This record gives sequence, C-alpha cells and structure tokens, in this order.
Amino acid sequence: MSGYKYTIGVDFGGTYVKLALLRFAEGSYRIEGYSLFLTQNYNRDELIEQLVIRIIKLKAESIYKGHKIKGVGIGVPGRVDFRQGIVCDLTNVSGWRNVNLRVQLETKIKVPVFIDNDANLMALAESRFGVAKGVDNCVCVTLGTGIGGGLILNGKIYRGTNFAAGEIGHITLNENGPVCACGSKGCAECYVGNHYILEQAIQKMRKGAQTSLKTMIDKRYSNLTLEMISKAARQKDAFSMILWHEVGRHIGVLIAGIVNILNPEVVVLGGGVAKAGKLILDPIRMTVKQRAFKVSRTNLIIVVSKFKEKAGIIGAATLALESNRKL
Amino acid sequence: MSGYKYTIGVDFGGTYVKLALLRFAEGSYRIEGYSLFLTQNYNRDELIEQLVIRIIKLKAESIYKGHKIKGVGIGVPGRVDFRQGIVCDLTNVSGWRNVNLRVQLETKIKVPVFIDNDANLMALAESRFGVAKGVDNCVCVTLGTGIGGGLILNGKIYRGTNFAAGEIGHITLNENGPVCACGSKGCAECYVGNHYILEQAIQKMRKGAQTSLKTMIDKRYSNLTLEMISKAARQKDAFSMILWHEVGRHIGVLIAGIVNILNPEVVVLGGGVAKAGKLILDPIRMTVKQRAFKVSRTNLIIVVSKFKEKAGIIGAATLALESNRKL
Repeated sequence: MSGYKYTIGVDFGGTYVKLALLRFAEGSYRIEGYSLFLTQNYNRDELIEQLVIRIIKLKAESIYKGHKIKGVGIGVPGRVDFRQGIVCDLTNVSGWRNVNLRVQLETKIKVPVFIDNDANLMALAESRFGVAKGVDNCVCVTLGTGIGGGLILNGKIYRGTNFAAGEIGHITLNENGPVCACGSKGCAECYVGNHYILEQAIQKMRKGAQTSLKTMIDKRYSNLTLEMISKAARQKDAFSMILWHEVGRHIGVLIAGIVNILNPEVVVLGGGVAKAGKLILDPIRMTVKQRAFKVSRTNLIIVVSKFKEKAGIIGAATLALESNRKL
Repeated sequence: MSGYKYTIGVDFGGTYVKLALLRFAEGSYRIEGYSLFLTQNYNRDELIEQLVIRIIKLKAESIYKGHKIKGVGIGVPGRVDFRQGIVCDLTNVSGWRNVNLRVQLETKIKVPVFIDNDANLMALAESRFGVAKGVDNCVCVTLGTGIGGGLILNGKIYRGTNFAAGEIGHITLNENGPVCACGSKGCAECYVGNHYILEQAIQKMRKGAQTSLKTMIDKRYSNLTLEMISKAARQKDAFSMILWHEVGRHIGVLIAGIVNILNPEVVVLGGGVAKAGKLILDPIRMTVKQRAFKVSRTNLIIVVSKFKEKAGIIGAATLALESNRKL
C-alpha cells in the first residue's frame, strides 16, 4: 500500500476544459496527468463525450501504474445541484440547463462523480492546500466580469438551501445605485466587475482625463485592458492609481460587510481583477480596517489566491477525495 | 424512564434575567418552572450569585420531581467565547468584560453550563420549535436599537472564527451614508435602528409634516414611540405608513443581500421593530422580491418570530439540550 489516494479533477470553464489526475498524500497533492481542450469547440453532447474519453484515458493511465481512482470531481461556472449532480445553469456556456451530468458520466466511466460550482471548489482548494490551508472559515471572492464567491464554513463548503449561496457580487453597496444585470440596484458587481472598471476608465478619458494610458491604446479606447491599467499604475500614472484605489475601496466595503456577517479567518481574492495585486490589496485592507468590527478584522488575513488557473482542477480533485458515494 | 430530558434556560437580558426549567420530548418542549429578576438591581458578582441561587432552586425542584438536569444554557446580549464559556463583552450591561461565567457557575451548581449570544439562541429556538422548525439554513434578524443576527447554517449555530458572526446590522446599505456608531458608514443600523426611526419621524414633523401622530404626543415629541407610529399607520395615517414603508424597504435591501450570500430557507424577524408586523413585512417581502436572486427568493419565507420574549429561555435551554460536555 502506497498510502496515496488518486482522483481526477475537471475544471469546466467558459474558455477551457482542463482535466488532471491528482495524487494526494496527507496534506499535499501532485498533478500526475493533464489534458485540456477548448470549450467552444464542442456542443453539449460532444463535450460530455470528450469528458468521457479523456477521463477514461486518465483512469487507464493510473490503473496501468497500479492506482485506483477514488472519484472524479468537476467544477462548473454556474449553479449545481450538488446532491443530485445536476448542472442547473451555466454562465457563458449555452445548452446546459438542468443537465444530469453525473448520471451521464457515471454510466460510462464507472467511477463516482461529484459536481460543484467553481467558486466553491476554488475555496476548497485554497482551504486545503493554499493560502487558507487549515482554516475553518474562509471566504473566496472571484473578481472577474462577474463577482462570485465560495464559502468554507466550519471546514466545509457552504452551499445554501438551493445550492445558490455565495452570490457575493450581488450585495448592495448603494441602495439607489446603477441598475445591475441581476435586476437589483447598486450591487457590488456594478462597481468592480471587469466591464465596469474599463467603462469607467474610458468615460473619464473621453471627458479629458490626463493619463499615460492614452499612449498605449487606440483612439476609440477599444483595446484597453485591466493589465494596461495595472501597468500604468505601477509606473505611477495617477489616473490609473486612483482608478484601482476606487475599485479597491468598493471591494473593501463589500468585504467588510461579509466579514461582519461571517467572521472568517481568511478572505481569498481570485479572478482577473485580483491580478492587480497590491494596487487593490492596499485599499481593500485599509477600507476593511475602517469599516469592519475590530474583533473580526484584527487577525483577518486578506490575500490573493495561490492557485489561480489551477484552483479549479485542484478543488475538483479535492472534492472527489473528500466525498463518498458508491456507484 | 419517562423519555423526557430536562434543562434550564437563562435569558440574561439588559432589563430582565429570566430563568426557566424546560422539559423536552421529541420535537417539543414545556416550561415547568420560571423565575425572573431585574438586571439592574445587582452588580456583576451579585448577579452571578442570584443565578447560582435560582439555578440551584430550579435544579432542586426538578430533582424532587425525579428529574435530572442535563445542563444549563445561558443567552447574553453580547459576544461570547462559546468554547470556553467566557462572556467577552455585553451591550448595555457594564462590568462584563472577559468574565469566565461558566467556571464561576459550574463550580457551584455542578451541572454543565453552555453560554452563547442571545441572537444565536433566538435562531436556535426558532429553528427547533418555532417558525423555522426543521429548517437547515435560517437567518434571524433582531430589529431593535441595534440590529443583530443569528445564523443557523447546515442545522447548526454558525458562530464564526472569533464568535463574532451575525453582525447583520453592519452591512453597508450606502457607502457614503451616515456615520455609524461602529465607525463605518451607511450601515443598515443607521437606517432601521429604533432611535433612527424615531429621529426620522421627529425631524419630519418638525419640518411641518402633517400626521395624526401630533395629536398623540407632547410638543417636544419626546414621548413618541414605535407603537404610536404603528397604531397611526394602522389607522391609515399616510405619514406613518410611508415611514414604515421606508424602514421596510431598507430592511428588504439588507435581507436581499444576506439571501444572496447565504441562500437560507427562512428569514425570521424579531425585536421591537418586528412588532410593526405587516406594516414592514409587506415592503420587506416586496423589496427582497425585487432585489434577491430568483432561485434564492422563490421559496424563501420571511416571517416574524414565534417566541418573542420567550425565545431567549427556549433557545438557551435548547442549547443545553443539544450540547455535550462532562464536568
């Protein structure tokens, strides 16, 4: 007996589907096999077929090496009925409404399958092997086009009654703020979502704001990216620095509220916006210090995620490691 | 063997300390003995002595009847280190900073003692025997001078890392709103706390607003109460109706955010403001419908607490029933 356990983790993203074979020992993991394909290359049924083929291949490889796969974990960008293994709906991938992915896979791959929301699995990965390792209560905030969240409470993923918990981006920051895509007003996502940040920058430039960004982009500002704003801010472009400061302040208000409700030990920031690093971490930490209860913020750690692109497969594989169900 | 279990519940409030002997059967409870005293009549040491005397008396009564007490549960208005039984600090009762109440009581009463925050115990009472009976995920919001919260997540009280979770009143409703006593800005408590509601009403009356309230109160508006505003609103006083509507809308924004994060089955409203009943329930429900995610709000129940004044002792006794620790 090696003492190792093996699972397969699948990160089903809007752009790529990544698969990996993971080997777990006490408190550590190793990626032993890897494969990926473009999500958009396949329709739903073809994509499921691809998953089956690739999972069976990874499974065969591991059996050849003498290891049995305990299970397959899958993270998807949307709501999942974790108990039944049903994908309820996906953001940015069409054709996935109420699909019983678990049944479709298990009948073919003959290994238990566990499916969950990707933000939940990012939180799981970070709380087991990453920046929140060993922590009981941890909140992961994914800062991208949408703002999502994964909650680890009392050491376990908290999913809520309808598996819809963690919609952190739709906490109100201003009751009468701009209308949000969700139908509410003044949601955090309206202030710190990717599109909003870029739009804000463009509007201000159109109004004549002075910034070194103007030398990097075309006249219609159509090729502006968050990376450019980060780069300019690091080169002390005041406009870009203030922009990130404002974004960080909004995120800080959001996190202060979450900290007051959930009193976590660690808040992990992931997603594209988190790549701004110190540019947003500083104002976030300052704002949380100003606004959250002292007892909840004193030992609070706010930090950027460790795994980034790999969080999905590690979290998914960990879910399979920790879940138990017989076929 | 009767099959019954007995515990003592203590509700240590800012005004009264209430004690009761409770008998539990499967899914039900009965209050079998009761006693109360005024909190302000005693200093800290005298109050602990009163607790000891009265607990021993209730214990003796039950032993006389042939029942053994499983434990004593105590709810206090402040933060408690539940694991160690230490009262960290209390709102509105002085002299209670880092008091190891458990040790002080257990050495004298010889029964295991369990101490928790009162909002947590209200949530426990409602989730076991009240309006959220049998529910896994439930949020209790206490609407008084302060706005507090108790969370039942996955069937258990969620306390957070420093036993400071549930500070629902200090979620921001407006980033640049009025300065809150907690040091932050635009907290929910600034819009729906008792004092704020009365102040709002008085300010508007001073500015000449027409309302039947003016016939009920003195010229300096000093005897205005929430009950008066409720009464006037029920008699169709437009001013009072609008006032409750506004309060309900703010609470609705707050609850919509909590619902988006925690996706509970039931939200229970308690405290003085909740006595306005339908006057605030209607705008709260309407606002949550407008602002929370459809999947999370569709089967959500928002309801006024069942137990009101008794929630404290029932919750405390239930805590002792469900907790296990040997002396």
